[in-house]
Amino acid sequence: MLTSDQLERIDVVLVSPRNPLNIGAAARAMANFGFKRLSIVAPFAVNWMEAKSAVGAPDLLREAKVYETLAEAVAHCTFVLGTGSLDLRRPVQAILPLPQAAAQLRHTLTTHTGGAPGPDSGTGDSSNPPKRPVPHAALLFGSEKHGLTSDDLSWCHTLAFIETCDDQPSMNLGQAVAVCLYELSREPGSENTHPQTNPPNPDSSQLDRLAALVEQTMEAVNYSTRGMRSANGEALRVLLRRLMPNEADLRRMMGLFRRILWQLNRPSGKP
Amino acid sequence: MLTSDQLERIDVVLVSPRNPLNIGAAARAMANFGFKRLSIVAPFAVNWMEAKSAVGAPDLLREAKVYETLAEAVAHCTFVLGTGSLDLRRPVQAILPLPQAAAQLRHTLTTHTGGAPGPDSGTGDSSNPPKRPVPHAALLFGSEKHGLTSDDLSWCHTLAFIETCDDQPSMNLGQAVAVCLYELSREPGSENTHPQTNPPNPDSSQLDRLAALVEQTMEAVNYSTRGMRSANGEALRVLLRRLMPNEADLRRMMGLFRRILWQLNRPSGKP
Repeated sequence: MLTSDQLERIDVVLVSPRNPLNIGAAARAMANFGFKRLSIVAPFAVNWMEAKSAVGAPDLLREAKVYETLAEAVAHCTFVLGTGSLDLRRPVQAILPLPQAAAQLRHTLTTHTGGAPGPDSGTGDSSNPPKRPVPHAALLFGSEKHGLTSDDLSWCHTLAFIETCDDQPSMNLGQAVAVCLYELSREPGSENTHPQTNPPNPDSSQLDRLAALVEQTMEAVNYSTRGMRSANGEALRVLLRRLMPNEADLRRMMGLFRRILWQLNRPSGKP
Repeated sequence: MLTSDQLERIDVVLVSPRNPLNIGAAARAMANFGFKRLSIVAPFAVNWMEAKSAVGAPDLLREAKVYETLAEAVAHCTFVLGTGSLDLRRPVQAILPLPQAAAQLRHTLTTHTGGAPGPDSGTGDSSNPPKRPVPHAALLFGSEKHGLTSDDLSWCHTLAFIETCDDQPSMNLGQAVAVCLYELSREPGSENTHPQTNPPNPDSSQLDRLAALVEQTMEAVNYSTRGMRSANGEALRVLLRRLMPNEADLRRMMGLFRRILWQLNRPSGKP
């Protein structure tokens, strides 16, 4: 089982859920397996009120956080795991069977080293010391109607799929949540553990700041490719999450791109 | 996954289910994981008719067998696995966590040797040779109201429990079915394989070409940090390998850095 500290650092995120019964079922599965943090993104207002006020709804449902966008919901998360029937899409992140994806999520929660950044880890910008987030994961579920969209998926580091039958691949939302939380809480047991000592991942909002710098740079040099520079920066967002830079990497890349931008914007253009 | 032969030899048995939605959810989970044989024991007639005639009900629900007693429902089974929140009862069978219980069920299905009874397997009554049944398992779920009764449990070889929280131990029926069937279908030891479907990785020389471009850019903008720009470019080399960009990523990054360099080296410095 996960520790209670770890359970406090996993958000279950329902994106635009429609059916109040499914919202209630997701909350009940959370209560069964000890999960505490539920987030709802852009719910249908009436259905959400109905779910929330249902008789016997667990406290975590009443205490759920509601966000307008997925970006806000996962801004504090260092690892975002998407779920769904992925047969129709070709996402570019790693797609793992649920057992491995769950192991990866558990692993990201154990890489918290704490403490202050090392002396040579910064960009020299001491007035704005980088924050070191506590590892925090999100598990995303799409709406019953169409699952996670490709925009939703672009916020994910990894995608998990449940091996289902080709005849009936799509699971009911409440049941999918139950299966995923069961797998997450499952005793790793004989599982191959990955005693990697990775530095902590940056959170989603830090990745977005790097993405913004890269986009500014692309604009400054008039660089555009269909793949990279879409209206919403989706491809860039996906790329950064797939590469999974750690915090030190991120600081270096931001330092470099800030420097490039500064140089490009100097009047003479030459040092 | 279980073989289709094995899936034909596992009955999912719902004992006195009450809620048509739960019956439908159980059937949907079965369809998701490829199970085909549903049995219903002593259902509430009206609810059963409602569940059966629901729009979109899978075929296996319409083809379910209805029995008056559990004894009849499991008469042909060589292994019966009970499920439920077992905290209130003290059954005398072995109680196993679901993963082990599922492994036991899978094992009972593979012990079928086939062929005729051996010479020393009978009771000596050669006029009435004992039949050697094909292994057949049942997975039992009790009603939403009280779970499996102690009479129901008396038909079971083993009882499976799902590790849930003490605060909210009792799972919704449809979700419990989904979790159990997921565990039964789960590839044993599947955590250890990593069948990632990532695009091909670039080779080392391609990574080095990107590294060279990044280093040129760092020089052009006079950017240097101890971590990044060592004499031999080691840190950058390590970084690129750790991030594991694929070939398409690499092309994009090289395109961007070429463009940055070109812009920086223009006489005016501005487009």
